[in-house]
Amino acid sequence: MANKTQIIEFLDAEYPQTKCVVEAVGGQGATIRHPIGIAELRPGGTVSGPVMMEVADVALYVAILGEIGLVAMTVTTSLTINFLRKPNADFALIAKCRLLKQGRSLVVGEVELFSEGDDRPVAHAVGTYSIPPQR
Amino acid sequence: MANKTQIIEFLDAEYPQTKCVVEAVGGQGATIRHPIGIAELRPGGTVSGPVMMEVADVALYVAILGEIGLVAMTVTTSLTINFLRKPNADFALIAKCRLLKQGRSLVVGEVELFSEGDDRPVAHAVGTYSIPPQR
Amino acid sequence: MANKTQIIEFLDAEYPQTKCVVEAVGGQGATIRHPIGIAELRPGGTVSGPVMMEVADVALYVAILGEIGLVAMTVTTSLTINFLRKPNADFALIAKCRLLKQGRSLVVGEVELFSEGDDRPVAHAVGTYSIPPQR
Amino acid sequence: MANKTQIIEFLDAEYPQTKCVVEAVGGQGATIRHPIGIAELRPGGTVSGPVMMEVADVALYVAILGEIGLVAMTVTTSLTINFLRKPNADFALIAKCRLLKQGRSLVVGEVELFSEGDDRPVAHAVGTYSIPPQR
Repeated sequence: MANKTQIIEFLDAEYPQTKCVVEAVGGQGATIRHPIGIAELRPGGTVSGPVMMEVADVALYVAILGEIGLVAMTVTTSLTINFLRKPNADFALIAKCRLLKQGRSLVVGEVELFSEGDDRPVAHAVGTYSIPPQR
Repeated sequence: MANKTQIIEFLDAEYPQTKCVVEAVGGQGATIRHPIGIAELRPGGTVSGPVMMEVADVALYVAILGEIGLVAMTVTTSLTINFLRKPNADFALIAKCRLLKQGRSLVVGEVELFSEGDDRPVAHAVGTYSIPPQR
Repeated sequence: MANKTQIIEFLDAEYPQTKCVVEAVGGQGATIRHPIGIAELRPGGTVSGPVMMEVADVALYVAILGEIGLVAMTVTTSLTINFLRKPNADFALIAKCRLLKQGRSLVVGEVELFSEGDDRPVAHAVGTYSIPPQR
Repeated sequence: MANKTQIIEFLDAEYPQTKCVVEAVGGQGATIRHPIGIAELRPGGTVSGPVMMEVADVALYVAILGEIGLVAMTVTTSLTINFLRKPNADFALIAKCRLLKQGRSLVVGEVELFSEGDDRPVAHAVGTYSIPPQR
């Protein structure tokens, strides 16, 4: 297992492009925050879909690292996302991940995305990560 | 319906952040090219999963615009992606979309992603877009 | 909206093949029970995957009927299921559905499946139903 | 690898409930036929969604058995299905599976479903099977 500080450093090294901020991790879950600015918006004030996919993916990744430790070669094998409501362009995206199964080689989790301050989900994702057997 | 030039201009306005290049569109499909550089890579030379999701999403979007024209408020409602093989960090990503169904309010399509020059898919996606009824 | 008794009668007429029993419905959710017998098992005591898919689909359907009423032509448009653990062949399957979004034309919900008496999910599904606009 | 006759016998033993008929298998694919009768229909002449899910699942299973042989403990880990058009109640369902990736522990494939005699897909599925490592 890895704690929040270790995961933040690891994410910084592994995923330097991301703007995702780890808010909480542990207990088979994680909460991620992603600021929304001009780079994340499309005309009409819509948050770009791929930004939401990235935040969901990172939330799942962080939740898994919190359980299995800082294991390189932990990779997404699948992700299904449903877009539910238009996110609010003026608020950060919050992703809450909950792991559903942690097997020897596959971990499955679900993620709900919110606009900060609103408890109606803007998107829901479920994804699978493959974790290397040689641990 | 919209042609390639119109779609390139529309994408430029709607999705200014994307590096996706429209290679072909029409006949219920589209081909997209996305360069791979330092910004798309993670340590170990892995192409970032969210980049692949974005390319799949854009390929589907472009294929739909090619059929229904430049309709604003055409939005992704769901996307499922399976990651199949490690993409080659030295080659562009190519996404080939084929529409499976074009209904009044929903369009469904599938996308195969490749590393340029290799015909084994690195990822497969299937997604749904909602198109506005008031056209 | 429709109550439990109405939904049970409707399901009986619409879906006479199903063994699903409505345990609870309302509040944007539903709980379904499906007995497990020889017809649902595969060698080795594994509950057949398609049985779990059916139970997930029915749970979502019932939760929707509970919100929109007994609307014919309410049909599944997509379903994603992840199988998490081997169900117990000696216990009924329980499906708990929670709706995530109820729009004008699309409803999205998630379902967790359990072996009765065990709170670790055996499968997780997320699905979308199309509801007719002419209501 | 297993041939068509071996797979038909294996399916008969493993999946005695299914009405699926193996039409072809090999070359990283399979074609399955499922008759449509009163047991597969819902009022209005709609083929039951779970029947389509079962046929998709079996098509993927058979395609995998054709590549890896008659391996017990080969189980579905995930399935995503999109329903595209109303199947014709008077014709059998045909499922054509094509494997996308055959890894050491995961196999991914896609399936298109048709009403016999009509080349417009009624549903599209993509699924993943876990294959046991101890082979």
